[in-house]
Amino acid sequence: MTTLAVFGAGRIGTIHAGNLAANPDADVRYVVDVDEPSASRLAASCGAGVASKDDALNDKDVTAVVIATSTDTHTDLIKSAAAAGKAIFCEKPIDLNIGTAREGVNTAEQHGVQLTIGFNRRHDPSFQKIKDEIDAGTVGSVEHVSITSRDPSPPPAEYVARSGGIFRDMMIHDFDMARWLLGEEPVVVFASGSVLVDESIGEAGDIDSAVALLKTASGSLCTISNSRRCSYGYDQRIEVFGSSGMVSAGNKTATEVGTADSSGFHSEVALPFFVERYADAYRIQLDKFLRAVNGEQVDLPGAADGLRALMLADCAQESLDTGAPVAVRE
Amino acid sequence: MTTLAVFGAGRIGTIHAGNLAANPDADVRYVVDVDEPSASRLAASCGAGVASKDDALNDKDVTAVVIATSTDTHTDLIKSAAAAGKAIFCEKPIDLNIGTAREGVNTAEQHGVQLTIGFNRRHDPSFQKIKDEIDAGTVGSVEHVSITSRDPSPPPAEYVARSGGIFRDMMIHDFDMARWLLGEEPVVVFASGSVLVDESIGEAGDIDSAVALLKTASGSLCTISNSRRCSYGYDQRIEVFGSSGMVSAGNKTATEVGTADSSGFHSEVALPFFVERYADAYRIQLDKFLRAVNGEQVDLPGAADGLRALMLADCAQESLDTGAPVAVRE
Amino acid sequence: MTTLAVFGAGRIGTIHAGNLAANPDADVRYVVDVDEPSASRLAASCGAGVASKDDALNDKDVTAVVIATSTDTHTDLIKSAAAAGKAIFCEKPIDLNIGTAREGVNTAEQHGVQLTIGFNRRHDPSFQKIKDEIDAGTVGSVEHVSITSRDPSPPPAEYVARSGGIFRDMMIHDFDMARWLLGEEPVVVFASGSVLVDESIGEAGDIDSAVALLKTASGSLCTISNSRRCSYGYDQRIEVFGSSGMVSAGNKTATEVGTADSSGFHSEVALPFFVERYADAYRIQLDKFLRAVNGEQVDLPGAADGLRALMLADCAQESLDTGAPVAVRE
Amino acid sequence: MTTLAVFGAGRIGTIHAGNLAANPDADVRYVVDVDEPSASRLAASCGAGVASKDDALNDKDVTAVVIATSTDTHTDLIKSAAAAGKAIFCEKPIDLNIGTAREGVNTAEQHGVQLTIGFNRRHDPSFQKIKDEIDAGTVGSVEHVSITSRDPSPPPAEYVARSGGIFRDMMIHDFDMARWLLGEEPVVVFASGSVLVDESIGEAGDIDSAVALLKTASGSLCTISNSRRCSYGYDQRIEVFGSSGMVSAGNKTATEVGTADSSGFHSEVALPFFVERYADAYRIQLDKFLRAVNGEQVDLPGAADGLRALMLADCAQESLDTGAPVAVRE
Repeated sequence: MTTLAVFGAGRIGTIHAGNLAANPDADVRYVVDVDEPSASRLAASCGAGVASKDDALNDKDVTAVVIATSTDTHTDLIKSAAAAGKAIFCEKPIDLNIGTAREGVNTAEQHGVQLTIGFNRRHDPSFQKIKDEIDAGTVGSVEHVSITSRDPSPPPAEYVARSGGIFRDMMIHDFDMARWLLGEEPVVVFASGSVLVDESIGEAGDIDSAVALLKTASGSLCTISNSRRCSYGYDQRIEVFGSSGMVSAGNKTATEVGTADSSGFHSEVALPFFVERYADAYRIQLDKFLRAVNGEQVDLPGAADGLRALMLADCAQESLDTGAPVAVRE
Repeated sequence: MTTLAVFGAGRIGTIHAGNLAANPDADVRYVVDVDEPSASRLAASCGAGVASKDDALNDKDVTAVVIATSTDTHTDLIKSAAAAGKAIFCEKPIDLNIGTAREGVNTAEQHGVQLTIGFNRRHDPSFQKIKDEIDAGTVGSVEHVSITSRDPSPPPAEYVARSGGIFRDMMIHDFDMARWLLGEEPVVVFASGSVLVDESIGEAGDIDSAVALLKTASGSLCTISNSRRCSYGYDQRIEVFGSSGMVSAGNKTATEVGTADSSGFHSEVALPFFVERYADAYRIQLDKFLRAVNGEQVDLPGAADGLRALMLADCAQESLDTGAPVAVRE
Repeated sequence: MTTLAVFGAGRIGTIHAGNLAANPDADVRYVVDVDEPSASRLAASCGAGVASKDDALNDKDVTAVVIATSTDTHTDLIKSAAAAGKAIFCEKPIDLNIGTAREGVNTAEQHGVQLTIGFNRRHDPSFQKIKDEIDAGTVGSVEHVSITSRDPSPPPAEYVARSGGIFRDMMIHDFDMARWLLGEEPVVVFASGSVLVDESIGEAGDIDSAVALLKTASGSLCTISNSRRCSYGYDQRIEVFGSSGMVSAGNKTATEVGTADSSGFHSEVALPFFVERYADAYRIQLDKFLRAVNGEQVDLPGAADGLRALMLADCAQESLDTGAPVAVRE
Repeated sequence: MTTLAVFGAGRIGTIHAGNLAANPDADVRYVVDVDEPSASRLAASCGAGVASKDDALNDKDVTAVVIATSTDTHTDLIKSAAAAGKAIFCEKPIDLNIGTAREGVNTAEQHGVQLTIGFNRRHDPSFQKIKDEIDAGTVGSVEHVSITSRDPSPPPAEYVARSGGIFRDMMIHDFDMARWLLGEEPVVVFASGSVLVDESIGEAGDIDSAVALLKTASGSLCTISNSRRCSYGYDQRIEVFGSSGMVSAGNKTATEVGTADSSGFHSEVALPFFVERYADAYRIQLDKFLRAVNGEQVDLPGAADGLRALMLADCAQESLDTGAPVAVRE
């Protein structure tokens, strides 16, 4: 049984706390949030108490923390939790600024605490199976990874303004997938994009439709396509093409039902958004984190993965800004 | 919050107790089973105590029971629970003998207690959606219901010997689906079958491959196909054809991953068996039962449904035995 | 090069003549039809002349005939063509009366001429592949064959009146498929059906919705479902389930295009009717017939197949009329 | 009836001649090829004669020509045929050098003859339907076109050496598709690629795996992926994503058959290569060309389309060579 504190009582914090509450190996002792009503509500729903950051970190029974606060607070919390010797699960991105992010990572390393990054998609059963098939040699050597990731509808403009831009906020997940599935680091990034969905996103200095093209040292290619709007649900697909085959994952639906009539055959839209699409992934990643906290050897995305994905996002942003491909700095 | 006793600590009882334990509106107070170690194990896993049947039924706090014991004990338990004024959820079939089953149903009626039958498939999201599409008029008037139901592998011969035969043990689920989706009672049943899978099933006096053909008064048709063996998983499909369209539900799989190579395109087998395939259905049906216990108007298969499906199974068995179609007795 | 006469300038005769005209190994010399304008039109379209039955059969160059006239004229034409020593391709059914059909078959046998029956579906690439997979052992031993065959819309009442009924006119194709795929003769037939589509069909003494259940001596089962109406195109599907697997053929569509929008994913209806669905099959069967005429060893459905399928249709009609299963007479 | 001469008796010329021979509105009078045996063989197969270029062009009955010779001879033949007043169907690319290609186009314009380019994919029923759906507003405004085009196996090194490179030889088809489906000209091209399949292709100065990213003035994006090797057949897919939906075309297969066994569900590979995949498209494009020759208003890719696609290929090659995105010159 691991005793934890959950920082952040928003949408993601609520998912994490719910999964921890249902996990027989976890005991959520504290919920911490600057917004007291949110903290109380979430704490009540999972049998925890409300605490300040310091009280939560000072409790010796608490051996692990989950950080799901706003991005700009991640690094400070990582530093504090690391200093208190806690194992840390932190949402992506670590920080919008890679220098700041590195500070947090360094602190965690100095204190020798585990730091896991919430790249939940690695734990999605379909994407995990893609990885397994690649590792089993089903596709031969990987030549092209194609990732489609489309949100159902654009976020509010105020969210966009603080998001760090589509590459750091949204495509960062796909950069992590790309690295994981290519099995090799991208060395050059070219990105392009447009404001096609929502003018207020453009006014906030961001784009809402983006593509990126990555290439590794050995010549493997990756294309990523993002949109902030998708009429038919949350479109999350990956296709990996290799020398001897292909492996791909389609969207998930609520049922397996189809209908037919004089206009054709019909089936339902993709699951609406990440809460539904990645429900299993969220559950599995925290379960793995708990097992890792208890000393088990578990495959989890760590601090280096968090920094690498952020670096690719920075390169993509620079490529968009300059109109030129960007070499990834080592 | 409803306080319950669970009777039966076997495979199905364990599923039900697990779902109740995870349901915030349920409190499993007792597990009852003649096999004490099983009862203790299950009770421990869901925070309940072990009790005798009488102690469990005498506890006034217990307002509902779940009966998942061996079929031959269902009626006695229904009678006792009804006499004690408990709302009853009973696994299918009520009894292998329809006369005995009727006695239980009558007792429940006399005591005015709710009696719900565990036709879990009605709560499967895909099959529920088929029903919704029919009710919404998507297929027009229903003309043909086709049900495919194949187990992954045959049960042990000793199970078969006590099962009441494939029609009462396995196809009874499909008879319930047929009635539900046809929206009308079958009036004639023709059944046929063979021993193609396992000779020991034939030696036990049963068959392992069966088909049934039902017809309603208005002329709607239904075909059902069962097998006790299926190489590609638990094959559970329904197709409803009507005057203006079709609605169908395919199998569920663990992931949405497909591969391609020089031999073609490949996707994974169906979920292995009912525990996986109907996990949602098991959870939803108990949740609905709890809501009904608390006075909510909920659509649940009741005693009459249990008797009707059993009657169709009896007709099918008679048809197989006599080689002739059997008119359903009113 | 084989020189042929085509009897019948209706819908099917036109398909056959067109395929022969495009076949470099065939020369259609005559078109014969009691309706002179039809004969002339078809003859002109394929570079043939119009002739009387006798003139066509007396031409020594003509070594093969294609019979696509109305069913009641098949046997007389078979007898005449056989007497003239021609190889014969005859549309199904040979005759609505099995005694009459046998006379034609006997005459063909006496004259030692080839008699091929137009069970076009055996030449459909998808169904041929199903057969190949069965023969290759993909499904193990065949346990259940399921055939769905639905016409897009009901034929005119006058057609129905002369058709011999749904079993001899429509399901006869499926009986041939069943025998071919089961690899074993059905020994008992049970059929049921209703008038659900068009009351005028009922007034003509026929049904428009039918199911049949066949069983072989070894216990293999087959279910067939027919409807005279289908909103989503010509529904032609076969599924063969066996001890180690399944093989199935879905419908064909005009394109591989799908769309998605906020209401879901959509694909197009099945090809409209047999002219489109079995275009390849019609072409291939005549090509095979020509090759057989030229002495090549080719797998083609012959007279015995024509009689057997008709016998199963008779059994199904008798089963419908009597309400009881019918043993197939040897 | 249009009388034609076919230039080129190789693989593509043979396809065109065969389609013309089967078209009742076409009469192939001459086949012209420097390789006399090839010319004779093809001429015999379609009832044509062999002629020299001059004899064929001097025949006043010949009103149209099909040019399917090696690319470096296209422009000269266009000039000669234009001077002779023939309507011209010319295979893609017009020429590897855009200046030379323009000369041919200019000559055709000066003589007022029709010049159609063999972008066969525009006539593929699936891709045509994608275009129709876009035009019908199914996807709203087009935001992202994704094109996957993979050959089954690499061409011989000597072919590669004369091919003009993967962008002018292979991706040129995709550039045409992109322009057609975007409904707007790309203004910037970024391309990347690698030698992953066959080192001899690299030694010939080309690549075998390529991606291109196009952007239009309004901000629509297009990604194209090519490979010279694909284990599961000729992979030809298009997906168009827009503001209100998506339309996509999958691969075609020889049959609709699937199998299932203990390892999963299996279906067959894509059609092997362009001869099979685009059989309908090849037939339809020549039929449309004939109709256009006869004065009908038909939508056909013309000289401007041929030049534009070649220009995009040039830009892609330049982008690959320089490592930078290239603005399309107006």
